[in-house]
Amino acid sequence: MKKLINDPYQVVEETISGILKAYPYHLRRAKGSPRALVRSDAPVKGKVGICTGGGSGHLPVFLGYVGPGLLDGVSVGNVFSSPGAEDMLAATREVSGGAGVLYLFGNYGGDVMNFEMAAETASAEGIPVKMSVVTDDVASSPRPERYRRRGIAGIFFAYKIAGAKADTMASLAEVKNVTDRVIEQTCTIGVALSPCTIPAVGKPNFTIGEDEMELGMGIHGEPGIIRTRLQRADDVAEVMSDRVIQDLPFKSGEEVAVLVNGLGATPAEELFILYNKFHDVLNDHGLRTYRVFVGEYATSMEMAGASLSLLKLNEEFKSLLDAPAFSPFLMQWRHS
Amino acid sequence: MKKLINDPYQVVEETISGILKAYPYHLRRAKGSPRALVRSDAPVKGKVGICTGGGSGHLPVFLGYVGPGLLDGVSVGNVFSSPGAEDMLAATREVSGGAGVLYLFGNYGGDVMNFEMAAETASAEGIPVKMSVVTDDVASSPRPERYRRRGIAGIFFAYKIAGAKADTMASLAEVKNVTDRVIEQTCTIGVALSPCTIPAVGKPNFTIGEDEMELGMGIHGEPGIIRTRLQRADDVAEVMSDRVIQDLPFKSGEEVAVLVNGLGATPAEELFILYNKFHDVLNDHGLRTYRVFVGEYATSMEMAGASLSLLKLNEEFKSLLDAPAFSPFLMQWRHS
Repeated sequence: MKKLINDPYQVVEETISGILKAYPYHLRRAKGSPRALVRSDAPVKGKVGICTGGGSGHLPVFLGYVGPGLLDGVSVGNVFSSPGAEDMLAATREVSGGAGVLYLFGNYGGDVMNFEMAAETASAEGIPVKMSVVTDDVASSPRPERYRRRGIAGIFFAYKIAGAKADTMASLAEVKNVTDRVIEQTCTIGVALSPCTIPAVGKPNFTIGEDEMELGMGIHGEPGIIRTRLQRADDVAEVMSDRVIQDLPFKSGEEVAVLVNGLGATPAEELFILYNKFHDVLNDHGLRTYRVFVGEYATSMEMAGASLSLLKLNEEFKSLLDAPAFSPFLMQWRHS
Repeated sequence: MKKLINDPYQVVEETISGILKAYPYHLRRAKGSPRALVRSDAPVKGKVGICTGGGSGHLPVFLGYVGPGLLDGVSVGNVFSSPGAEDMLAATREVSGGAGVLYLFGNYGGDVMNFEMAAETASAEGIPVKMSVVTDDVASSPRPERYRRRGIAGIFFAYKIAGAKADTMASLAEVKNVTDRVIEQTCTIGVALSPCTIPAVGKPNFTIGEDEMELGMGIHGEPGIIRTRLQRADDVAEVMSDRVIQDLPFKSGEEVAVLVNGLGATPAEELFILYNKFHDVLNDHGLRTYRVFVGEYATSMEMAGASLSLLKLNEEFKSLLDAPAFSPFLMQWRHS
């Protein structure tokens, strides 16, 4: 294990501490839990608060998306494991501005269980909570069992649009509604080339041959759907985009937002080589790219690989996707 | 070599092609060279144009910094090798808005030679060109021979401030002046944990033991100043910050901008663990952090490691650092 860390058991605490020191104007800790952080001006009165949470090791997911136009709070678990209900509750209390709170997170058993507990307690305290669970990983279950799918990089689109919708002072039901529609229209598939190492474990979370890749692997190393020899980037891109396009399915004439996400160790050059082909395949299918995001939006520490996410757009989604946002990892404003 | 590429000799072309497809509103090719790109609205009339360039493999350096508030054009070489004079000239011609052009790039022999040739030809064509050469790597030469130092991640500060200054419609001499002062006040040191592989070579550019790190290694694998066993992150951070602080030197009471840059494969979590200690060391030296940037700002493909850059600030630098910017890899606007 070759990592720039101190104590493997202090990785999360020191990461959070470093983030708070780097972004004191963006973020602060919530009272009652060192593992709950909120935007520094929380709560925003009258606005639906949005909380996310999950295991560490995926930066900029989750901390990087807390800020105006995006999320209000986050609970932070150990590497690849769920935060506690009390952490989510601590964040919830401080982001509640009187309009309720939306929990928006990826579909993992521990997170669902803990956040449901937090939601119950919050409700009992007079804070209405609704949940939107992200299920974008098309490799993790067939579409008819979509509710079983894992949440991966496509959560970015849900964050962005939910945050923008909440900024319009929409109601909790309205924010949940648009968020669920985004989740329903988002499809992602990943490909992994190398494993990563959980610091406290000290060895790679899976093994893969020097000449192999695995399509559909999850961001914690969950098994994918097919392991093959490493293919040419164009062939990998073709397989990935076909899987994603056929899933929803995305149809000719539709507009899409595209996210090409690096899992951690894959250079940006390779992400653009993939996008070079994705773009052509999308065009061949008659899909128009409205907005393209390329970079590390949801990682698995030093795992090598990438994912492709597509979101089918409508006028409302486009407008919300374009709205300003201001967080440590994402800044955006309308441009001409 | 485990890379998501097609032909190793087409990596640069396909990367550029992917970037142009992803950011059609930001960038376009300049006439006369497939290796010259300019912001889509170039030239901006009456504004000093800023061109950079260098070898590929360092994204977001260089293409990611082309846009309003930043750079106007770029010439793109093969991986880790200089672009040709004619590429820089093609960019120069299209970014010239009548106020001259500044070449702003890292101090590498091939780049200096080729860009001097381009500058001569441009001048003969009636486009005044001045050059600012970035020399921030404190490990590459002692301070008295600062002109021999390599340029690494600290180039980001020069880009940001030069771009903002040019946006004020300052003259070429004024833009060069502020840029040179930024370069003079910027110090960087890097640490490498693993090598990277130039696609057309097919094997790592250097070897390093499973338990070793090298302080001061350059972003192309140029030898550093000391190779040791991998240290704890806090110890690495202490050595790095001491080297940088003592170089200028940075003195108690001064304000600084900080860049913690990932070289490619190092997870953001580790960058924040480093910053967690950098911040304390800076505080111990009485330095105040005005603005902190953490992420991948100048990479070496899949090299693992990080660098620390400090810029000593004054009121002018602060204002220019805070000015809005809009490029594929950097978006920023003034915040309260």
